[in-house]
Amino acid sequence: MSRLTGGDPSLLRRINSAVVLHALRGAGSPTLTDLTRITGLSRPTVEGVVEGLFEAGLVVEAHPDESEARRQGRPARRFRFRAEAGYLLGVEIGPHRVSALLSGLDGRVTGAGSRTVSETAEADERLDQVRAVIADLLRRSGVARSSLRAVGVGSPGIVEADGTVRLGTALPGWTGLPLGERLRRSFRCPVLVENDANAAAVAEHWKGAATESDDIVFVLAGLSPGAGSLIGGRLHRGFGGAAGEIGALHLLGRDVTPEHLLSTTGTPLEPLDEQAVAVVFAKARQGDAEARAAVERFLQRLVHDVAALALALDPELVVVGGWAAGLDGVLEPLRRELARYCLRPPRVTLSLLGEAAVATGALRLALDHVEEQLFAVEGAVTTRR
Amino acid sequence: MSRLTGGDPSLLRRINSAVVLHALRGAGSPTLTDLTRITGLSRPTVEGVVEGLFEAGLVVEAHPDESEARRQGRPARRFRFRAEAGYLLGVEIGPHRVSALLSGLDGRVTGAGSRTVSETAEADERLDQVRAVIADLLRRSGVARSSLRAVGVGSPGIVEADGTVRLGTALPGWTGLPLGERLRRSFRCPVLVENDANAAAVAEHWKGAATESDDIVFVLAGLSPGAGSLIGGRLHRGFGGAAGEIGALHLLGRDVTPEHLLSTTGTPLEPLDEQAVAVVFAKARQGDAEARAAVERFLQRLVHDVAALALALDPELVVVGGWAAGLDGVLEPLRRELARYCLRPPRVTLSLLGEAAVATGALRLALDHVEEQLFAVEGAVTTRR
Repeated sequence: MSRLTGGDPSLLRRINSAVVLHALRGAGSPTLTDLTRITGLSRPTVEGVVEGLFEAGLVVEAHPDESEARRQGRPARRFRFRAEAGYLLGVEIGPHRVSALLSGLDGRVTGAGSRTVSETAEADERLDQVRAVIADLLRRSGVARSSLRAVGVGSPGIVEADGTVRLGTALPGWTGLPLGERLRRSFRCPVLVENDANAAAVAEHWKGAATESDDIVFVLAGLSPGAGSLIGGRLHRGFGGAAGEIGALHLLGRDVTPEHLLSTTGTPLEPLDEQAVAVVFAKARQGDAEARAAVERFLQRLVHDVAALALALDPELVVVGGWAAGLDGVLEPLRRELARYCLRPPRVTLSLLGEAAVATGALRLALDHVEEQLFAVEGAVTTRR
Repeated sequence: MSRLTGGDPSLLRRINSAVVLHALRGAGSPTLTDLTRITGLSRPTVEGVVEGLFEAGLVVEAHPDESEARRQGRPARRFRFRAEAGYLLGVEIGPHRVSALLSGLDGRVTGAGSRTVSETAEADERLDQVRAVIADLLRRSGVARSSLRAVGVGSPGIVEADGTVRLGTALPGWTGLPLGERLRRSFRCPVLVENDANAAAVAEHWKGAATESDDIVFVLAGLSPGAGSLIGGRLHRGFGGAAGEIGALHLLGRDVTPEHLLSTTGTPLEPLDEQAVAVVFAKARQGDAEARAAVERFLQRLVHDVAALALALDPELVVVGGWAAGLDGVLEPLRRELARYCLRPPRVTLSLLGEAAVATGALRLALDHVEEQLFAVEGAVTTRR
């Protein structure tokens, strides 16, 4: 707080820049008069800020449309935010697939690409595929690598602040991998690595099933289940970045993996073999008794894990994503059981973004990073300790 | 943000008041020169604010000590915060006991009182005891009821924002009780009701075992276990105020109460009969096999519940309080199991405040409320959506 009152004249300038930039991005092609009205700032202040943004290449003069040019002798100058002043990537690295989304500085997706990759692929091979997907996407989109402003990456595992994977059992060679460092060699811009379920939670809040709620849990349902949560609209990473790692819950006195639960033969399925899982679910739908029992065991586990999260966090909304969400019968048992144990059970809904959730969240994290720089206002005013 | 930039001249005044007041409370009896140096504000600004605080009765002139008076011809005027300008209460309503703490506006406890109450007492009787404890405490302390600025109350159960108990199975007649409304009749100041485990979490962070950590889980261990958590130093209540209600976790496929688990006869103990529990623990210490098995079952349950919380929230520190914390052998199994399931297991420690935790937290919540009013700075600067 002393920053604000102790005399940081640049802070007010930065606040004003942020206000004007927000207004510019929200309001089509506003005139200076529009901006003055929207922001409540004085005309000279608005002019000064717009001039600065102009020089930074973030704002250009918009061409007045013809009707207005005809109506008025000399139309007021209009301005617009230059989303094309820089680009962002959102990348998902999964067990079976790597994918990437491209957007301008407004976060609107303008390109996408993906490749399949084997669940047994080693880290080097997986990273090669990531680089190939990105190179291909940039080339197809005609975007120079040098115009990238930030790259967000969603990956399974517990991810450190510097992008090192502290633990990642879902992918071979992933635990201990300095993922951020490895990827940074390919870019001149910041690379931000986030746990996949955390990224998906951010995505559903941004443009998916959770745009109306700030208190959500996103469950990445599958053989290696994980969860991400937003509290008051902010990602809750936990003290060590491991919040929501409910995959370990089943260890509590029950050393049985999902691959065990879903087995119809007594021998567990191959780790992460989702094809085999799909077969079990298909058989269950056809009425096979053993398959039904296996699916029932799997769903009970999932319900238990999600219920534990719901009791701990008390979210408004639970969004279920991941491949298990596409299988029959996940939602109803979840709703039923949560209603039993929670006084005010959260709403339960399916992911709207589906397979795109993790990459979309990674893109949003890249956008957050760039916006933080554009709108940098440090030392928020607060009097609570 | 538009508040700040859109022309709210009083905001800066309020920020300045908060800065000066913080400095006054931290710095003994500062002079105006001291305050100017500490706050970085201009001399006229500091003078104006101190004058305002003086008029509001929150600041008085401190008497210079004699040595200084001798040393200088005309010593600079010194000022001090008037903690005695108002009083606060922190109240705990428990199954077996009601208690209250009294403090000035600096939060320093100047008086305390408590009464035992039967776990079978109905709500009216329990509230009568609460009023009696408070009346007695005020009388003994020579504090007029009219000088109370806020009353904080910690109670078992899920508590609504208005102080209504939405669910409270630990106390007879508690579910649905408009606790805040009932207590407000006795006071002219605000009455704030909070879940007991939440209040205890706040207390341990304020002046207990968690002063060094902002990411904590407080476990109120006992027959009706609950938990409260701070995330980034702030109380996490959850969307519906039910976060941390891990007591319901045991319902997940295991409809067994702690009273069942602790039974050595097959017949469950009386609900909330902590005397009977103490007997079981004592027998276990003496080597009784059935009692040891019962205690083991109880501890396993507790460990499971806390592990679920730790996996969901990933705290830095788990503080164990409540009566079970005073019993042997809660801490070690908890540490051992958390180390098994958490990649970066939280530290586990006992409550430092013990029986005073809930009332202390309630007092802090009352203090928070008053400070918010004193230092009211609305519309914190933020540019993130």
